[in-house]
Parts: sequence; C-alpha cells; structure tokens
Amino acid sequence: MHLSIRVLPTDPVSAREAGQRCDQLLKPLGSLGVLEEIAIRLAGLLHTPSPRVEKKAVLVMAADHGVTAEGVASAPAAFTAIQTKNMLEGRTGVAVLARQAGAELRVVDVGIRGQLDVPNLVQEKIRQGSGNILREDAMTEQELQQALEVGRAQIRILKAQGIQTVGIGEMGIGNTTATAALLHILRPDVELTQIVGKGAGLTEEQYLNKIRVVEEAVARTGLGPEDPLAALRTVGGLEIAAMTGAYLGAAEQGMPVVIDGVISMISAYLAWKICPEAKAYFFASHASEEPAYQVMSREMGQEPPLHMHMRLGEGSGCPLFFGIMDAACSMLNEMSTFQEAETDGTFLIDIRDTI
Amino acid sequence: MHLSIRVLPTDPVSAREAGQRCDQLLKPLGSLGVLEEIAIRLAGLLHTPSPRVEKKAVLVMAADHGVTAEGVASAPAAFTAIQTKNMLEGRTGVAVLARQAGAELRVVDVGIRGQLDVPNLVQEKIRQGSGNILREDAMTEQELQQALEVGRAQIRILKAQGIQTVGIGEMGIGNTTATAALLHILRPDVELTQIVGKGAGLTEEQYLNKIRVVEEAVARTGLGPEDPLAALRTVGGLEIAAMTGAYLGAAEQGMPVVIDGVISMISAYLAWKICPEAKAYFFASHASEEPAYQVMSREMGQEPPLHMHMRLGEGSGCPLFFGIMDAACSMLNEMSTFQEAETDGTFLIDIRDTI
Repeated sequence: MHLSIRVLPTDPVSAREAGQRCDQLLKPLGSLGVLEEIAIRLAGLLHTPSPRVEKKAVLVMAADHGVTAEGVASAPAAFTAIQTKNMLEGRTGVAVLARQAGAELRVVDVGIRGQLDVPNLVQEKIRQGSGNILREDAMTEQELQQALEVGRAQIRILKAQGIQTVGIGEMGIGNTTATAALLHILRPDVELTQIVGKGAGLTEEQYLNKIRVVEEAVARTGLGPEDPLAALRTVGGLEIAAMTGAYLGAAEQGMPVVIDGVISMISAYLAWKICPEAKAYFFASHASEEPAYQVMSREMGQEPPLHMHMRLGEGSGCPLFFGIMDAACSMLNEMSTFQEAETDGTFLIDIRDTI
Repeated sequence: MHLSIRVLPTDPVSAREAGQRCDQLLKPLGSLGVLEEIAIRLAGLLHTPSPRVEKKAVLVMAADHGVTAEGVASAPAAFTAIQTKNMLEGRTGVAVLARQAGAELRVVDVGIRGQLDVPNLVQEKIRQGSGNILREDAMTEQELQQALEVGRAQIRILKAQGIQTVGIGEMGIGNTTATAALLHILRPDVELTQIVGKGAGLTEEQYLNKIRVVEEAVARTGLGPEDPLAALRTVGGLEIAAMTGAYLGAAEQGMPVVIDGVISMISAYLAWKICPEAKAYFFASHASEEPAYQVMSREMGQEPPLHMHMRLGEGSGCPLFFGIMDAACSMLNEMSTFQEAETDGTFLIDIRDTI
C-alpha cells in the first residue's frame, strides 16, 4: 500500500524570532522551561513569531473491536455506542473538559457496530467493527485506506472551519488490546508485560488472557516492525487507523496536534513511523498510566508536561494541554522584554540612583 | 514567640459526597486521577459537594535581602524593585499568566529597599530589606511577628473580596540563599548540594561561594530543626515570613492555597512545621527545577502535577494550576453519572437490543 503524505514545512525564521524574544523577556534565560519550548514550536508551526491558538477542537474517532469476543475488556462492547452518545450529549470526560477549555468537540463514527443515530455524530462508518484480530485481520487493505482518508479529511474540514489546533481522542472498547498488539509488532524488544495494561479494571486472570490474545494475534500475522501499515491493517482498529490519518492530516495541513493517552499515542507513533517529519506537529499532553505510553513517548522524545495519573482516554487530556498552549502564547506575546520595559520609562535609572 | 493559629475545619461529609459522585461518573473508577483528587479535596475545603473556584488571585510578597552583599545572586539587588514595578505594570511572567487565567494579582511591599511608589503596590514595608544573614539575623522578633501578620491580613482582605483560592508568589533577589539556609537548618540530614541551586545562572565559583555563605550563616545561628520560627527570624527573609503568614492565613480562612516554586514551597513548609493541620489547604502546582523543592515536596507528600521545567518564581506556576482546578470542578459538576445518563433516556435498552 502506498501513502503519499506531504508535510507542510515549518517556518524556522518565525521560530528563531520567537526564541530570540524568549531570551529577551523579563526573566532569567530559559526559566519558563516548557512554556518557552511550546511557544517557539508554535511560532514555527503556525508561521508567525506571535502565535495564538484561539480556535481549538478535539476530534474523536469511534469504532468497535471484534476482539472483545475474547473477553479482553472489562466494559461490555456496547459501551462504545453508549459512550459515543453520552459524549455527544456533553456528559463524558472529554465533552466536559473540552467545553470547559472552550474547544469544539467533533465525534466521528468510523466503525461502531449497529446503527447509531445521534445528532452531530459524523457518519463515516467503514464497517461494523473491526475483525477479531485473534483469528482474522482487523480490516482489509481498502478499509485501511478508507479509514486513513477519513482522518485526513476530518482535519481538512476542521482547518476550513478555522481550527488552529486539534487534540486526537477515541472511543472503542477493546482498543487497548489492539494497541498492545500493534506495539508488540513494532517493538518486539519490549516485554509484553511492559506493554499490556490492566485497562479499566481487569482481574489477574483476565489480564493473563489479554496477554495471550495479544501474543497469538501477533503470531498469526507473522509481521515484524518494518511495515507499520501492515500492522495497522492486521491487528489495529478502525478508529486507530482514522486517528493515524488525522495525525498525518494535521502535518499535511500545518496544524499543531495534541496527543492524549495510550491509544492516541499509538496512532501518533504509527503516523511517525509512516512519515517521520509529521512529528514536528505533535505535542504530548499528559503521561498516561498505561505502561505502553511511556515506551512510545520515550522513543519519540515526547515528554508530556502533565502528570495527572489519568487513564480515561476519549481525548480527555487534550483540553488540559490547550490551557498550557494558551499560557505559552500569552507569555511570548504579552511579557515585556528588558528593552521594552526600559524604553517605556526612566525607571531603571531612578532605581539605581536610590540604592 | 507564640503564634496561635486556628485552622478552619474541613467538611468530610462534602468530601465524601464528592468522592461518591466521582465513583459514579461515566468513566472507569479513578480514571481521572489527579482531577478526582483535587475535586474531592476542594469539596472538603470549600464545604460543598459541588465546588467551584471562580475568583482566584496570586498574592506576591516582595522584599530585599541583605545577603546579596555577599555576591550570592546573579541578578543585581536593584532587580527586586525593578521587577516589582514591572509586575504591577503587567509585564512579568506572573502578571501575564495570572491575567491569562483570569486571576487577580496583588503585590505587597514588605521590605523593598528604598521608596517604591507604583500604583496598586500594597505598602506594608516592615524594614529596608532583611539583615545580611551571614553576619546578623534577618529580622527581629517583632519584625517577624509583623511580617507573619501582614501575610495573614492579606488573606483576610482577599477573602473579604470574595477570592476563593490564592497562589503565593514572591519577588526578592537573594531569596534562594535564604531558602537554602532555612532548609539546611530544618533538614540537617540533607547534603547542601541537594539544597543549594545555581539560581538564575551562577558560575561555578559563585555557586561555591553561595554554599559557603549558607553554611556559615547557619553555623552562626547554632539552630537545629526544632524551632522553625527561630530559623525564619535568623536566616529567612521578610517576604518569606509574610508568605508563611499567608499560608497560615489561608488555613485560618478556609481558602485553598497554591504553592509555586522553591521560595513558595519553603514558606508552605514552614507553615506546615508551625501548624501541621494547615497542610490540608495546600496544593503543589509544578515541580520547580531548584533541587530543594523536591526535598520538601517529598517530605510533605505534595506531588505537583505540572512538570514544566520552570524556575522563574514570582508565583508564575500558580495560574497554570488554576486551570487544572477549574477542570476538576467541571468534571465533578458537569459529567453525568451512569444513573443520570440512564434515567434521561431509554438509550441503554435500545443499544442492548441492537447488539
């Protein structure tokens, strides 16, 4: 399968200008740490030395997983549809946190089982849930292509609406199993116990079963780490593929994109493996409690500034990071430089005289 | 010296009710981690199962330090006054970040050298900078009492203005030296190199000099860890004493109070040593880069959720945490419980029928 991604080039001149301004602000060099890094990156990504991210969105992809038939999830599979509806009704974690942060919420059905008619749900269903990866491929080549394209197209739509940054979230009971299988293929050097989490609350027996399912699903494919798209097709999921497409789309459209938890991270990781330059647009938000998260964030050099002990998913960590982005932009645009402060008054001289 | 602090009791019933609601929200148990902890604590502190912190402030105490005569700071001592003025003109880190978070900024002169006439500066000068702790006590017993009382009084004023939570910041060139001396007295078990930081940018020679100054200042007092008020009087600072008073005042007034960096933390630490129950009101915000910070946050069991590599001070980390507090309150008040979602519709049954 061929995927042609053209990442929008960043603007090193604006980034450099922002960096120089950071160094001149009324503070010790580098003393605002991550805020400075974010401000400088945003300047480069948004092609302006004075970046602002006023219009934000969380994009949620929802789909079911055939592998839930193997008892890998503690919640019933029906919860994918239930929580998608609850999300669109403003009741779930990401819905509340996005609203609180002033961010739009866009929810896309790429593979929920059954017919879900909820106002504002974007209907892009590719199939009725992915295949049971223990026994069959998650999707066909054509379905994978379709899912990736849905993700890219959703970013184009958000861009056209004036959205300046997007967080990527998901809803899909069973998707930590798909995530573990994907990472087991892509990082065969890491112990499975470092990859498979206990999810929302598995018993020890259920946990051992989940490890077995991941192991056998991966063995079935016979794949190694060299082909991320083949991994995505065989043991991934429809929402994970659409999210991967969204990360690639963000890089194509020049839109800074925020990573949530472990599912959001595996999608970013896949996008990075498919197109390494896309990573320039990625921002890690919070350190998920799922063990696989750290494996990937470390390899990608994405250190999340928020340590919230969260493991909800949905995209719920992204709105928290939006607040940090706003703070970074305010710092860059509104703090004075030493020169501005001095030019505006004769104060420095006065003070020197009194002491 | 006697200090009588009556900490306002928290409300365990509201905290329990908030905790029960957290457990019923549309999410796996505990999956919103720190947000849940904050929401539950705020419920207890604010005596309501539905807490909100709409009116916020950052309270900044500013004072000079006689010990700057020993060359312990990389910035000139005059910067205390200069940055206090810049802060009130809205130019510095905390000024910009507080404004961005919708928080009020209140700046109090408790000991800036010279006469600083800036609009909105609260004039509570106790003396013209603290004594040079290498050779003399930072302040007298009476001055200490006065500084502690200024801090407590400022919180009473904020409370009367309807402020619901406050962050504690500072401006005082030389105050990391006072902080190191205080902690060296209170934690003689910790190596000085684990306590003394390189501040805003000391050379190796300046750093060794700072360690020597701290060592000799502490040796001069002959104090041990049993008397935190004596430590504060002999090697502390006027703004540190006023900040300590503010932490105690917050606990007296029942106001949740946010810790910024290492100076803010030593003040919280002193307040805790003086009155252990006060800690119920403290919230760590971000992990400062100064090594002493971790020593204290670990001992107090205060794990900061933000890892921003910041080391500016001023109170600049507090506004970032205000956003997290708002998110925690929204989560608690606006997410639905499983029962609310079920009661509002026949949806759960419909879905079960289709799958």
